[in-house]
Amino acid sequence: MGMVGGGPGAFIGEVHRKAARMDGGIELVAGAFDAIPRRSKQMGREQYIDPRRAYPDYETMIEKELKLPEDKRIDFVSITVPNNWHFPMAKAFLGAGFHVMCEKPMTMDVKEALALEKIVRERRRVFGLLHTYTGYPMVKLARDMVRQGDLGKVLKIVVQYPQGWLIRPIEREGHLQASWRTDPKQSGAAGSMGDIGTHAWHLAEYVSGLAVRQLCADLTTFVKGRRLDDDGNCLLRFTKGAKGILHASQVSIGEENDLAIWVYGEQASLEWHQEHPNYLYVNRIDAPQEVWKRGNNYVAEKSPAAGRATRLPSGHPEAFLEAFANHYCNFADTIRAKMARRKADPLFLDFPGVADGVRGMKFIAAAVKSSGKGATWVKM
Amino acid sequence: MGMVGGGPGAFIGEVHRKAARMDGGIELVAGAFDAIPRRSKQMGREQYIDPRRAYPDYETMIEKELKLPEDKRIDFVSITVPNNWHFPMAKAFLGAGFHVMCEKPMTMDVKEALALEKIVRERRRVFGLLHTYTGYPMVKLARDMVRQGDLGKVLKIVVQYPQGWLIRPIEREGHLQASWRTDPKQSGAAGSMGDIGTHAWHLAEYVSGLAVRQLCADLTTFVKGRRLDDDGNCLLRFTKGAKGILHASQVSIGEENDLAIWVYGEQASLEWHQEHPNYLYVNRIDAPQEVWKRGNNYVAEKSPAAGRATRLPSGHPEAFLEAFANHYCNFADTIRAKMARRKADPLFLDFPGVADGVRGMKFIAAAVKSSGKGATWVKM
Amino acid sequence: MGMVGGGPGAFIGEVHRKAARMDGGIELVAGAFDAIPRRSKQMGREQYIDPRRAYPDYETMIEKELKLPEDKRIDFVSITVPNNWHFPMAKAFLGAGFHVMCEKPMTMDVKEALALEKIVRERRRVFGLLHTYTGYPMVKLARDMVRQGDLGKVLKIVVQYPQGWLIRPIEREGHLQASWRTDPKQSGAAGSMGDIGTHAWHLAEYVSGLAVRQLCADLTTFVKGRRLDDDGNCLLRFTKGAKGILHASQVSIGEENDLAIWVYGEQASLEWHQEHPNYLYVNRIDAPQEVWKRGNNYVAEKSPAAGRATRLPSGHPEAFLEAFANHYCNFADTIRAKMARRKADPLFLDFPGVADGVRGMKFIAAAVKSSGKGATWVKM
Amino acid sequence: MGMVGGGPGAFIGEVHRKAARMDGGIELVAGAFDAIPRRSKQMGREQYIDPRRAYPDYETMIEKELKLPEDKRIDFVSITVPNNWHFPMAKAFLGAGFHVMCEKPMTMDVKEALALEKIVRERRRVFGLLHTYTGYPMVKLARDMVRQGDLGKVLKIVVQYPQGWLIRPIEREGHLQASWRTDPKQSGAAGSMGDIGTHAWHLAEYVSGLAVRQLCADLTTFVKGRRLDDDGNCLLRFTKGAKGILHASQVSIGEENDLAIWVYGEQASLEWHQEHPNYLYVNRIDAPQEVWKRGNNYVAEKSPAAGRATRLPSGHPEAFLEAFANHYCNFADTIRAKMARRKADPLFLDFPGVADGVRGMKFIAAAVKSSGKGATWVKM
Repeated sequence: MGMVGGGPGAFIGEVHRKAARMDGGIELVAGAFDAIPRRSKQMGREQYIDPRRAYPDYETMIEKELKLPEDKRIDFVSITVPNNWHFPMAKAFLGAGFHVMCEKPMTMDVKEALALEKIVRERRRVFGLLHTYTGYPMVKLARDMVRQGDLGKVLKIVVQYPQGWLIRPIEREGHLQASWRTDPKQSGAAGSMGDIGTHAWHLAEYVSGLAVRQLCADLTTFVKGRRLDDDGNCLLRFTKGAKGILHASQVSIGEENDLAIWVYGEQASLEWHQEHPNYLYVNRIDAPQEVWKRGNNYVAEKSPAAGRATRLPSGHPEAFLEAFANHYCNFADTIRAKMARRKADPLFLDFPGVADGVRGMKFIAAAVKSSGKGATWVKM
Repeated sequence: MGMVGGGPGAFIGEVHRKAARMDGGIELVAGAFDAIPRRSKQMGREQYIDPRRAYPDYETMIEKELKLPEDKRIDFVSITVPNNWHFPMAKAFLGAGFHVMCEKPMTMDVKEALALEKIVRERRRVFGLLHTYTGYPMVKLARDMVRQGDLGKVLKIVVQYPQGWLIRPIEREGHLQASWRTDPKQSGAAGSMGDIGTHAWHLAEYVSGLAVRQLCADLTTFVKGRRLDDDGNCLLRFTKGAKGILHASQVSIGEENDLAIWVYGEQASLEWHQEHPNYLYVNRIDAPQEVWKRGNNYVAEKSPAAGRATRLPSGHPEAFLEAFANHYCNFADTIRAKMARRKADPLFLDFPGVADGVRGMKFIAAAVKSSGKGATWVKM
Repeated sequence: MGMVGGGPGAFIGEVHRKAARMDGGIELVAGAFDAIPRRSKQMGREQYIDPRRAYPDYETMIEKELKLPEDKRIDFVSITVPNNWHFPMAKAFLGAGFHVMCEKPMTMDVKEALALEKIVRERRRVFGLLHTYTGYPMVKLARDMVRQGDLGKVLKIVVQYPQGWLIRPIEREGHLQASWRTDPKQSGAAGSMGDIGTHAWHLAEYVSGLAVRQLCADLTTFVKGRRLDDDGNCLLRFTKGAKGILHASQVSIGEENDLAIWVYGEQASLEWHQEHPNYLYVNRIDAPQEVWKRGNNYVAEKSPAAGRATRLPSGHPEAFLEAFANHYCNFADTIRAKMARRKADPLFLDFPGVADGVRGMKFIAAAVKSSGKGATWVKM
Repeated sequence: MGMVGGGPGAFIGEVHRKAARMDGGIELVAGAFDAIPRRSKQMGREQYIDPRRAYPDYETMIEKELKLPEDKRIDFVSITVPNNWHFPMAKAFLGAGFHVMCEKPMTMDVKEALALEKIVRERRRVFGLLHTYTGYPMVKLARDMVRQGDLGKVLKIVVQYPQGWLIRPIEREGHLQASWRTDPKQSGAAGSMGDIGTHAWHLAEYVSGLAVRQLCADLTTFVKGRRLDDDGNCLLRFTKGAKGILHASQVSIGEENDLAIWVYGEQASLEWHQEHPNYLYVNRIDAPQEVWKRGNNYVAEKSPAAGRATRLPSGHPEAFLEAFANHYCNFADTIRAKMARRKADPLFLDFPGVADGVRGMKFIAAAVKSSGKGATWVKM
């Protein structure tokens, strides 16, 4: 594994490293960690990697890695930089034959996304997109319940992703995470909708198996001087007649990361909260509510994908890093199968990829377009 | 107190009686409880009232009560019948000089609502509208926190009222509550939006002190053959730039009566759930979440209205009936003040009235109109 | 219904009135509300009762009521005064032929309790004891689950009743409730164990159907100068080999009234919290947790007693007053059956009576004895 | 890092590996993973370690590692085998000059514990004991609140550790974890009290800063044929007059791993639950409850130890593995300081060590002794 980004002070790069390292099957051996070569070197040292493989930039990294014998060079790269760099970097690594794990949102716009999809297909590389939250075992259980028909026809989906950390204009106070995320040149056309709204959208489609067909989005920039939306409310219309609501915010004081979903069907409903990820609430008609708890036999029996995504016994909580690591496990097992010229177990393929990235970019584009027209309905 | 409706098998009439009775200051002495005179008599007996005052219909009730000496006749009537009867009955009782406590939604349409408002004003009678949920002490505390500026400028409001009891077409299986509520002739232009969406709307305006200015509503009838919407999702725009979401449903399996509200301001936010009504969650920037618990000194000090609406010490939960009774207390104390020619204490006036009813009907009309146009923005 | 106690400023007397009044079948018509005759009169006026029946003391009340025609006099009296008055008053009213509803703990000691039991039996009067919490429908459901064998053999019971209101010596600051409750002459041999520990004990025996056989109690008076225990921890041994823990406190800051019980059996377990009384948690081996919610059909089908104790549909929370009122309903229906010379429906008899009172006094005596010997095991 | 135990199918060994690996500063390079040499080799391969360093037994491991140059050999060993092996292995590794991280309970009895303490002191090695739960940041915050006087004098502590996984005699059905844990020869004198009661005891002393002085324990073996207790209830008396309750169970159906603690002081109280580890509930007199949430600035400001033990921003939950890893971090940083002949930062020293192990064994011995005498008070 190599890494682009994740230099000193970065947030998500270190999360990638912890998650990739957790299960012992992935080793970080190279990286272009920072735009400043000295800082890239520094991180290389901190990560105990060969100093020669702490590169000053990603172009050099590709060039030098390609010169290594095949069994020494990295198998894949993780791209953990601001959004504007995702496309050129992914393109370059894929072009050079490396598999790619990429942060979301995948690109800056739909055009880039489609181009990337084409490259992935042509180069036959494995491409992973880090929509963390579908890595949680109870989310996989939820999806499998819908798939197995427990809910009957899905009628309504409510999905939310409220945060409050941007209630003040901290991007003007030198806050690193805030500054690139509120900069359209680095972040893209949307703020809250791009950074977290896409996670909510992805969760809704993943769990329900439905696709958003139309949406009506009312985006707002509440903090004066901010250049991108920091709040958004959307009405959704899904395939097969389901309706929905999606809302996301970065200015909701007290909310930390309360991504949550409710799916209501004709036979049953379910509810899941990211901040309490080990529980899935299931309701059936005229029956007590069921609280499914991660780590139990009955979960693994209902959902082998949830079982596979579980490391600890019930009552020993698992959380964000494990969800993250689950995507890495499946991504890596898919690569291993490819390298061994085996067909990948369908369970391995359960991680977000380039198709999710294309749809995610369409979601962002549709939301921005709808809001720009005064919150009218647009197709996605 | 007299009552129209609340015959054998009715739901809300008995709730009115329990609530009115709770504090000992109101006595039920007359009623036209049922459209079938024999059943009205029966309920009169069950309520231990003078058989001569169990009337066959509301016209007779008015006629006969007026013939009683003033100190014997009822002071007010509670109207607890399907919506189509609210207007003619309220009009008649107000016209005869009685104060009126009325179930919501107030009338069948905006026109009736405005006519009723005119009558109330002209006859100078006390008119109460049973939006139960603003009777909860912690809702009053929430309103007072907003009023006192704890939240700063309000940015966003999310309010929901999901239920699941109409997931099956029980109106076609003889279910009394379901059948009139899904019948446009008895219920009005909206189903879920009229029955429960109005509660959610009322809660949002009551707590925030803001008014919905525009809305975009996507109403759906999920159960085949049903004649009114059983689900609705709305985007809201409030005065002073606040944005919002309101959703209500009668087909969300597992949801019982989870009216809930989140109000996010520039300085703080708050959250309240009707199913756990004794708690108000308050969040401030970079500080632990505060859980305010009903019955404590600190609640009454912050909100005298909440203090007045409290009967039991902390930890001894209060619930729906007490909220209901709080409106009756304030309504009755306002009548008492009027009868004593005293000015009512502002705390007494804290119950929903005819103005709320007019706005409620405008909310319903706007939601239906918006949805009819494909979910476009309409003014309210 | 008549009442002794419940004068101006009293807490529990007004709770009795609200609860008795709630369902419309009980009317307060007489009382000796306060040791000060003028204040008794005042409360009589506030309760709209005939001034001649607001008596200066309970002896006069008995004397005068007996002179009324049988169909005019009270059927029963509610005794809502400090503990030291329970026995003499109950004895007098029972002796005069009245049924009695009495506050707990029933008497000052076991001797009085046994004497009272004898009187109740001899006079064949209906005697109710207000252990409020077994009036909750979900507690009745819990008991019925145990009875029906859902849990299998019961192994372990944990029951707690923590409060925090006596953390400061408010009995020395004129706090009415605190002062008599911490006075051995008015309260009896125990403080926290008598006031709330008995509720916890009663709940454990009611739900489990088992009896405490032995206990080991470590009582403490944490607030200096207080004359009775304000905290107690007990180990319990039940009949049929079950073990248990009971703890109660009046000095646990932040705890309001968190009476809660966990019953673990060989096949299943259950959990209930008084502060969230509408939910019962049920766990079975290798299955999702079940949350049973009050007001649903499946509850009433499992437990007719819970169904009968329910007034509102699911999601419309019920609380303390309703639990209180449930005991009054059953008590009153039992009296009505007796007056009609009918056999009372077994469901009517589901309220605590004199036998519970005797065992409650034995529990207090055992706890005090055990603690006095350094927390050693004593039989109960 | 080297490891003893953690062979194929073992539970806790893999947890040690994941936790040690998480932060990138510790590398597993050697091990005697299994009593069967072939299986030890197999695990070595799975862990990508040099095949020569996958040893057949711990004696060989010590011998061979000592022959490696000092900068190549392991710095410390993790002992993750059944309890009966802790003492001889720890003794051997310490004797050979290695630092040791050991599973709990530390030894088989107090005598061994004292002997081990002597060795640690004499050999001046770093010794860590894996009481996982004090690695949670919110537990560190709790301890620091008590230390800083927020609670005032501590009055009462309730601590519990209920589980339900041993409700059936799975030790007789080939369940690996169950079989050694219920075998006195491998587990020691206590079952539930040794395996989980010690965690509860440790948590209580860690958070409160008090020591258990006396206890009265009622241990039970509920499952027929089981050789050790599977349930225990204890009354506690702490230094400085605090009282307490500790209970643990392996036969409480529905309980998974609900270690939880309540500490009540004269000024405030706090509550923490292992299954929801990111939250600490704090109550002060007549004030709203405070919910402190991990990852916020206000937590790190109050408790630098909690801040240091935090990897992810608020709302991104952390859980069991991170708590585990926190002990490894502090343990490793202490070793690094020692190797660099620097004084360890006091924050590094915040992990359980040999003194905790000695007290833990005394706790087990006292509980077993007390219960054996019929649950009487014994000194600890």
